[in-house]
Amino acid sequence: MIKNQTVNKQIQHRTIRAFKDHNLTADELETIKQVAKHTSTSMFTQQCSILHITSESKRDRIRQITGQSYVGANGDLFIFIADLYRNQQIRHQLGKNDGRLHKTDMFMQAVQDTVLSVQNVVNAVESMGLGAVILGSINNDPFKLLEELKLPKLTYPILGLQVGEPNQKPQMKPRLPSEFTFFENTYKQDIDVKRLHDYDQIVQTYYDLRDANRRIDSFTNQMASQKLDLRETKRDRLLSAIRSQGLCLE
Amino acid sequence: MIKNQTVNKQIQHRTIRAFKDHNLTADELETIKQVAKHTSTSMFTQQCSILHITSESKRDRIRQITGQSYVGANGDLFIFIADLYRNQQIRHQLGKNDGRLHKTDMFMQAVQDTVLSVQNVVNAVESMGLGAVILGSINNDPFKLLEELKLPKLTYPILGLQVGEPNQKPQMKPRLPSEFTFFENTYKQDIDVKRLHDYDQIVQTYYDLRDANRRIDSFTNQMASQKLDLRETKRDRLLSAIRSQGLCLE
Repeated sequence: MIKNQTVNKQIQHRTIRAFKDHNLTADELETIKQVAKHTSTSMFTQQCSILHITSESKRDRIRQITGQSYVGANGDLFIFIADLYRNQQIRHQLGKNDGRLHKTDMFMQAVQDTVLSVQNVVNAVESMGLGAVILGSINNDPFKLLEELKLPKLTYPILGLQVGEPNQKPQMKPRLPSEFTFFENTYKQDIDVKRLHDYDQIVQTYYDLRDANRRIDSFTNQMASQKLDLRETKRDRLLSAIRSQGLCLE
Repeated sequence: MIKNQTVNKQIQHRTIRAFKDHNLTADELETIKQVAKHTSTSMFTQQCSILHITSESKRDRIRQITGQSYVGANGDLFIFIADLYRNQQIRHQLGKNDGRLHKTDMFMQAVQDTVLSVQNVVNAVESMGLGAVILGSINNDPFKLLEELKLPKLTYPILGLQVGEPNQKPQMKPRLPSEFTFFENTYKQDIDVKRLHDYDQIVQTYYDLRDANRRIDSFTNQMASQKLDLRETKRDRLLSAIRSQGLCLE
């Protein structure tokens, strides 16, 4: 293993959900902006935009959408948006039609720009001694989120990110051993749950700070649980919400 | 701006497409594996797998799919896969059905896990003094890629990544000023191409090493060009390829 400041932080990554009661400094915020800006972008299309949510009432309503008490609490809240609207406007003003902007290919490229940006910012944040939580939960109610953010067609909010000075010291959450996730040339299809026994044991001894009083269930039991079962959830509206924005139509 | 080793690399990010004629050391490869492993994951589902493509013939065929001469040339080639198959197998072996795995929501979570991993690895790579190019071009012929990689249902190859010791020193590619991409609370819909004039000028003075003999076109002209025009392209088969894998069905 190579060790350096960047890698040391990466292999000790922990999600931080509790932050101290102050906001980012102007320098920290500017660093986040610059890092996001210099992230790789598919075909130079630059299809990511970021909303910094500073309005208390907006933060409250986004918290309600996520159902997570820490969202919009202490720390700074950002929403990362897959943005094909900007290029549509440029095309229109230069006399062109929407072209390929409604294709799944273009949407996926914008999603990639956006998620690359999120991780790049997470790494910057952690390098500054701050912490972050990536918020997939902003899409717990996709149409409500769109209404709240008043986004134009051809944009879609992919992930939230809350950032701040950590006010907790969570344990590292144990990950699948590389033999299950990293392959040479050929994907290994023969997965045997029994081989996950040791990993399951490790996961069971990890305490999640979100519920510090009990151990969490084994990995395989979690994957076979309600988490991935068919159930009533507004998250199933994601595809129709994306399409209502004119994205991913074919 | 905060400066540290991580941020310094991030704000000077350049895509590297030419590498020296040797592979990653065992230490560098192990570092990449460990960093990928510790990337954030949605709902702890760990839905990313990585193929390290070391077979010369496979590298050749992937290069042909991308149409880019540097793919599979010098350096190490990785394919990052959104992987819901592993959790399907776990569920089956524990007596459960596929549950929500065919939903767009689950696919998007897996895509996010995967793209977060890509950027995390890029940052690790750059911190080690190496370079990388993210390869969206692996999906220039989606069905051919699936055939080549022999992936099971419920997996999809999202991005390639080629990594190695840089054999070129490209200029930094100028990015949109933050005022066009970073907003407080409310997305600004009034985009005026004229306000992009200065940025367009900057882009026009940048020389792309992929075609070092000429300046590239302005940003707005590129966005209004054939790049985003409707045209015959196998990339339009992306959605049917994803669905042929049982993903994103509803």
